Amino acid sequence: MTILYCVKNDDNHLLLNAIKRELPDEQFDVWPSCKNPDEITTAIVWAPPADLFDSLPKLQTVLSMSAGVDNLLGHPGLRPEVSVVRLQDAGMGTLMSEYVLYGTLMAHRKMHQFALGQSQKKWLHETTCKNATDFHVGILGAGILASQAAARLISNGYRVSTWSRTEKRQSKVQSFFGEEQLELFLSDLDAIVCLLPLTNATIGILDKRLFHSLPKGAFLINPGRGQQLVEPDLLEALDSGQLSGAMLDVFAVEPLPQNHPYWEHPRIVITPHLAAETVPEESAKQIRASIEAIKRGEPPAGLVDRVLGY
Amino acid sequence: MTILYCVKNDDNHLLLNAIKRELPDEQFDVWPSCKNPDEITTAIVWAPPADLFDSLPKLQTVLSMSAGVDNLLGHPGLRPEVSVVRLQDAGMGTLMSEYVLYGTLMAHRKMHQFALGQSQKKWLHETTCKNATDFHVGILGAGILASQAAARLISNGYRVSTWSRTEKRQSKVQSFFGEEQLELFLSDLDAIVCLLPLTNATIGILDKRLFHSLPKGAFLINPGRGQQLVEPDLLEALDSGQLSGAMLDVFAVEPLPQNHPYWEHPRIVITPHLAAETVPEESAKQIRASIEAIKRGEPPAGLVDRVLGY
Repeated sequence: MTILYCVKNDDNHLLLNAIKRELPDEQFDVWPSCKNPDEITTAIVWAPPADLFDSLPKLQTVLSMSAGVDNLLGHPGLRPEVSVVRLQDAGMGTLMSEYVLYGTLMAHRKMHQFALGQSQKKWLHETTCKNATDFHVGILGAGILASQAAARLISNGYRVSTWSRTEKRQSKVQSFFGEEQLELFLSDLDAIVCLLPLTNATIGILDKRLFHSLPKGAFLINPGRGQQLVEPDLLEALDSGQLSGAMLDVFAVEPLPQNHPYWEHPRIVITPHLAAETVPEESAKQIRASIEAIKRGEPPAGLVDRVLGY
Repeated sequence: MTILYCVKNDDNHLLLNAIKRELPDEQFDVWPSCKNPDEITTAIVWAPPADLFDSLPKLQTVLSMSAGVDNLLGHPGLRPEVSVVRLQDAGMGTLMSEYVLYGTLMAHRKMHQFALGQSQKKWLHETTCKNATDFHVGILGAGILASQAAARLISNGYRVSTWSRTEKRQSKVQSFFGEEQLELFLSDLDAIVCLLPLTNATIGILDKRLFHSLPKGAFLINPGRGQQLVEPDLLEALDSGQLSGAMLDVFAVEPLPQNHPYWEHPRIVITPHLAAETVPEESAKQIRASIEAIKRGEPPAGLVDRVLGY
């Protein structure tokens, strides 16, 4: 068995070397080198070129080096019978929970209003805020990243609810699920965080209807995927005051184009898709666990349902 | 015994009513009403007028409605034999720890650099950050607010050290103390937080010498007192890159004057002295405990050493 490694952005081979340390007995080909394409049953990929899969007739499993596999599942060369495994945590959980906590503290302690005040030289000393225990954060999603973010918020005193497509329960969290509970979930939130996978069901979920189901003045934190957010609806909700502000890490087009209205919007905080990077050592550990599971004939953790998209 | 209540900024009597609920059997005079000044042995004050104490010949104890008593101790009418008691926590600990955590996350996750990037329409995707466990936060101070801030940072994964004038130890924290350990304490920090009381020994402590004892690129968080910061030294340290940024809640003159250079400085985040407000119910509980201690002839918690100033 030879494993094909095709990961854009790993120019220094930090990740590749970490994987080799975890799997010292495996053979790796590093794309574009591929001596025996007929022997490749497993590929480790991130942002694979358009023709990658065409040359690998025996490919059975693709190990994605990201948690979101929306781009990979849309790859035209990915045959239906190929299994896709996505990263489960790989160090992202901690980083994501820090990001969500920062956005929550910004919203809760009105830091975005103080920033706006600073730009206008206004001393907003009369500003008040709720206790953290009364500040209600809703998380769209109930996967590994969402669960870790929820736990971090709870340990910092916040009230947290989650919403997911199917029923999932978590301790200390009020769990909502299904389309029919979405409005109820939204109706009492001070801030909303999107950590859903990007699927056909979640494209454009952050839209006018969702914003208007939130209490007026709620705050949006989106470290999920840019395509989940309907841009004109966000701008309208911010301008009307329906949303008090938004912190965005992901965008439909990245890098965010120079002429995009988000850059100069006084109520939008932009971060450059850095909410949660994978940690090479952690990613490599999951690769090893996946390879070992495959060899035992078991489904690896993070096996994607290609119909659901996550 | 009649207690004189003279608290500026409690126009709605939220605090006064909370105190009356805690001490239903006590008599209160509410300044400027004071029927029998000769009977007043205890006064609850915040920002007392210049002539308040002159008319109270029997005054023994002043209960300050703030944690910092620098202004009160400088009051010309406060006779040397009068005891001063300062607020100990009164709900401020939680709020302060949130503020310090927000500033720490900003520094750790480079949020101040992203804000600057946004203002220049720059997509700073190559930015890297340390793990929280390697991000070293130093807290000047080891009182109740500093201890709670330290505990909050530790529970969020940060490495924390504290420095205090006299030896104080805290679990999970490396404790430095005394002038001779200050440089060692500073030499390894990524961020520094000032939570010292304002005294003759701490005026101007955040100066050129201190900034240059920090590693280059450290971040300053000051929710202590404005007079502890030497303004030209901060501006110089930011402009040279010795400090990467500063988050300031307190200023030598408040509100911050319109023509102050901080307002437009790209590396300074201003908040309007709202890092930690007292919670009336919590303040009232401490007032009750202090009154009860005084009646038992015991020193109340928060009794100030008027020479040390805290």
